[in-house]
Amino acid sequence: MPVPADRGRFISLEGGEGAGKSTQLRALAADLRARGLDVVETREPGGSEGAEAIRTLLLTGGDDRWSPRAEALLFAAARADHIEKTIRPAIARGAWVLSDRFLDSSRAYQGQGDLTDADILTLHRIGSAGFLPDRTLFLTLPEQEAETRARARDGDASDRIGGRDRSFHRAVADAFARFAIEEPARFRAIDASGDAQAVTQRLLDALADLLP
Amino acid sequence: MPVPADRGRFISLEGGEGAGKSTQLRALAADLRARGLDVVETREPGGSEGAEAIRTLLLTGGDDRWSPRAEALLFAAARADHIEKTIRPAIARGAWVLSDRFLDSSRAYQGQGDLTDADILTLHRIGSAGFLPDRTLFLTLPEQEAETRARARDGDASDRIGGRDRSFHRAVADAFARFAIEEPARFRAIDASGDAQAVTQRLLDALADLLP
Repeated sequence: MPVPADRGRFISLEGGEGAGKSTQLRALAADLRARGLDVVETREPGGSEGAEAIRTLLLTGGDDRWSPRAEALLFAAARADHIEKTIRPAIARGAWVLSDRFLDSSRAYQGQGDLTDADILTLHRIGSAGFLPDRTLFLTLPEQEAETRARARDGDASDRIGGRDRSFHRAVADAFARFAIEEPARFRAIDASGDAQAVTQRLLDALADLLP
Repeated sequence: MPVPADRGRFISLEGGEGAGKSTQLRALAADLRARGLDVVETREPGGSEGAEAIRTLLLTGGDDRWSPRAEALLFAAARADHIEKTIRPAIARGAWVLSDRFLDSSRAYQGQGDLTDADILTLHRIGSAGFLPDRTLFLTLPEQEAETRARARDGDASDRIGGRDRSFHRAVADAFARFAIEEPARFRAIDASGDAQAVTQRLLDALADLLP
């Protein structure tokens, strides 16, 4: 099905720590630009002036600065601003928007404990009318490789989101895998191991039906 | 019914601009302290370290800084933090907590436009398990008197919340009146006109059944 040139797209990249989302997002953006597309690179939490201010609130302070419930509401507020101020206007002018994390990260990280997945989806409905990506690329990596990469990058550093234990990260990976099964049209699970260029090609292949 | 001395209470003061909530809250706190009660004076948005940081985000910037939906999520996040860090611990130690505005302000100010009252209540359920005041004192004032008072106080100044037109403030007053009818056990509508000391006495009378 041909895609009109003036139809923008919204693509989110998801996956656990160390899966290479940020690197792959840059490589994917470069490739799409080389095809003549207007590409906007963004991230969550953040991606707009208001959402970046909320990001600062979210990522600073001690582990107990925010309860899981306050945190989920702040993520949803940041997302509402990100969508309204950055994503929707870009799509409206025909751009491709690539976001490093989006709703599914909230579902995987905040919707598996005090809050349910249904709660996170309800916040997204109230905050953003349930706006979803045209496609979500879920980068998967064997647990061992993800840990090695995350450790190589962060050393011993950790922030309020990243610095959690192995069972937590396993629960997150399981949640992403479940979402992919529940929404096969939106999700593509992508093997993120091995050569970076090969991974980028897999991402492009997973967008082939959306490309003009 | 006698109230055990170790049982704290949570009281919210609500009403439109110029109804005298802040002044009355201070007078009420002074009277309760004179009766030997431990009293915590607080306000929304704000009332805890995290919630005050969110308050700063909410009250600064232009009229279009936050969409009504992002704003409602930020208020709910601030409220979740306020309840968890300030209100619940104070009640647990037996204090009386008096808050200048609470949930019903969100319902009246944010739940009458893009969002519904049900949306605001859903955010409060997800964020704060639907936690409600033991009593809500709703200060009412004839429209003309409220406008005169608000103008005398603010001059031409306005912030993102207060600086709205007459029809908006009328809708807010109507919403508060509706809540009072829907929840007669929690709400007391208090005539806030005339002598300040007489108003304080009316507030105390409306708390008589809760006082030890």
